[in-house]
Amino acid sequence: MLDRLTLLRQSISDLNLTVFLISSTSHLRYLFGFTGSNGIGLITSGQSFFVTDWRYREQAKQEVRDAEILVAFRDLFGALKERGLLSSSERLGFESHHLNFRMFSHLRKTFPHLRLVATEYVVEKIAARKFPAEIESFRRAAAISARVWDEVLPLLKPGVRESEIAAEIVYRGRRLGADREAFEPIVASGWRAALPHGLSSHKPLASGEMVVIDFGFIVEGYPSDITRTIAVGKPSLSLRNAYDAVYHANQLARETIRPGYKGLELDKVVRDYLISQGLGEAFSHSLGHGLSIELHSLPRLGPTSEDLIPAGAVVTLEPGVYLAGEGGVRIEDDVLVTETGGDTLTAIPRELICVG
Amino acid sequence: MLDRLTLLRQSISDLNLTVFLISSTSHLRYLFGFTGSNGIGLITSGQSFFVTDWRYREQAKQEVRDAEILVAFRDLFGALKERGLLSSSERLGFESHHLNFRMFSHLRKTFPHLRLVATEYVVEKIAARKFPAEIESFRRAAAISARVWDEVLPLLKPGVRESEIAAEIVYRGRRLGADREAFEPIVASGWRAALPHGLSSHKPLASGEMVVIDFGFIVEGYPSDITRTIAVGKPSLSLRNAYDAVYHANQLARETIRPGYKGLELDKVVRDYLISQGLGEAFSHSLGHGLSIELHSLPRLGPTSEDLIPAGAVVTLEPGVYLAGEGGVRIEDDVLVTETGGDTLTAIPRELICVG
Repeated sequence: MLDRLTLLRQSISDLNLTVFLISSTSHLRYLFGFTGSNGIGLITSGQSFFVTDWRYREQAKQEVRDAEILVAFRDLFGALKERGLLSSSERLGFESHHLNFRMFSHLRKTFPHLRLVATEYVVEKIAARKFPAEIESFRRAAAISARVWDEVLPLLKPGVRESEIAAEIVYRGRRLGADREAFEPIVASGWRAALPHGLSSHKPLASGEMVVIDFGFIVEGYPSDITRTIAVGKPSLSLRNAYDAVYHANQLARETIRPGYKGLELDKVVRDYLISQGLGEAFSHSLGHGLSIELHSLPRLGPTSEDLIPAGAVVTLEPGVYLAGEGGVRIEDDVLVTETGGDTLTAIPRELICVG
Repeated sequence: MLDRLTLLRQSISDLNLTVFLISSTSHLRYLFGFTGSNGIGLITSGQSFFVTDWRYREQAKQEVRDAEILVAFRDLFGALKERGLLSSSERLGFESHHLNFRMFSHLRKTFPHLRLVATEYVVEKIAARKFPAEIESFRRAAAISARVWDEVLPLLKPGVRESEIAAEIVYRGRRLGADREAFEPIVASGWRAALPHGLSSHKPLASGEMVVIDFGFIVEGYPSDITRTIAVGKPSLSLRNAYDAVYHANQLARETIRPGYKGLELDKVVRDYLISQGLGEAFSHSLGHGLSIELHSLPRLGPTSEDLIPAGAVVTLEPGVYLAGEGGVRIEDDVLVTETGGDTLTAIPRELICVG
């Protein structure tokens, strides 16, 4: 397998560009190993440069590989200019969803003779196929999530607040060796479970509710992202039916996934099933998304995604059903796409658990 | 005091604009109360609109105030167009550091007749002066940080890992009622303390080291951001001297701050003091920054900041000294700028504590 910078140089050349600007901090980590919050990268046909500000000069020296390091007082583009780079009329590609308009304007002003070409998902496409070491990190991140779930399950009972559960999840994941959470945990109970992205509140769990718990951890830069839904006491018939439908939808997704599908095709298989159960409207988000150093990456698995699912991708599969005012159910796993199907990384039971 | 939208409409009119686009999620929370991760806002002279995607339709209904809610399947700008907005040739302001180039291009394509005007810090300038209710939230966030520090201090001893301390900080803040951390805690010991923004590693604390601990919590949307530095065992003379210098620099900053200073003027007072101690080079970042719903906001307090410090601002004052390979010291407080000076919100002792 070719290394990341070689693959990126091929993409740059395929796009008929001579240089490429990296401005996403996730991509700086992916390509150069830098974990700080401010920097840019420049890839030419033969060289790579990493620029950061003076706060990060020591950290950059320790972390950055495969690039010459430049330290700016404040103006990162200015540091490239002082180094004598981008002086000729080159075709520079930049990732249009990672560069804000102010930086774009500043780039144009600093290098007025450059031809600036907006691109999309150049690094994400490379990052979609995982290297073996990355897969090991994903497995470790998934294993920590599974252990956290084992520890948190006994704490779920009526009267416990959503925010207390979120605190326990965060604490236990870190104690088990995670670098940190992949995102703020969602603990949403009762009517709040009908909010697909409702984070957690100080609401206590109550009998008769479903509780959606969506969490994940970062290990060596790579995230896990899982959701389980439990019942407190006996759920209503409509919530019980929603659970069964989502359970089967999750299983269907994991059994169906394989390389070569488009994102919208896989989404449609699962969405059609939920439509057949009268729950099409209630499945109010996409089936899933690629995982990389970025939590939301390629391939996208939603009703409008033309992304091809490649072997070597890691994706979430997360069907959900939300009944406004009543509750919600989501069951989410992380799956490695193999040559022939999917390998579920998140080995946590999916059968409905009723507590309290 | 006028309300936020009235102040914003004054700014829009002063800038000779007819409409204004909000794309920062922090600003959407500040203006409309929305806590989700995807949305835009549109302010006209007489109306306000909030657009989000279908995942957030229920959440928006519950949270959003002072705006008509539009729900898009996917294309947020398209929803504005369908509502019949921006149909005439208006002058639309957008915040150039919050809109990425892809969204800018999409905006231009969706509304080709609009005159698009890049602006900077329009909402931030309004948000710099705090309302009384906001100040109460800042006080609560600072009080939680103080209690967390009391709880964490006894845990600091040789052999404890940086990451364990970070986990305890996060856990205890949440248990004490914080919504969550304001940012990933930095726990940096020994040579790692020379990295001003080094997060935490699995390195254990060792005797003779300084440990920089930088953390904060969010309460009702508003952050605290404090740093204390402790010694494990007996520090070297150079680190002890660095501590004394930073201690005095922090005090000098808190005693000097008052409305009417420019950011660079206050920074210079403190920087000149550290230069007089032979530590000018070692103070490798800005003196501080404004706090609002955004962690890094106006006024900026650094060597190039022309921002005027207004009464009613809340800022961090965080001088630091970093000795590469050896260690570092930072002491950071949150200060409310009053009519006559500064009111320190973070009432935590600053004298050097030696543990273990």
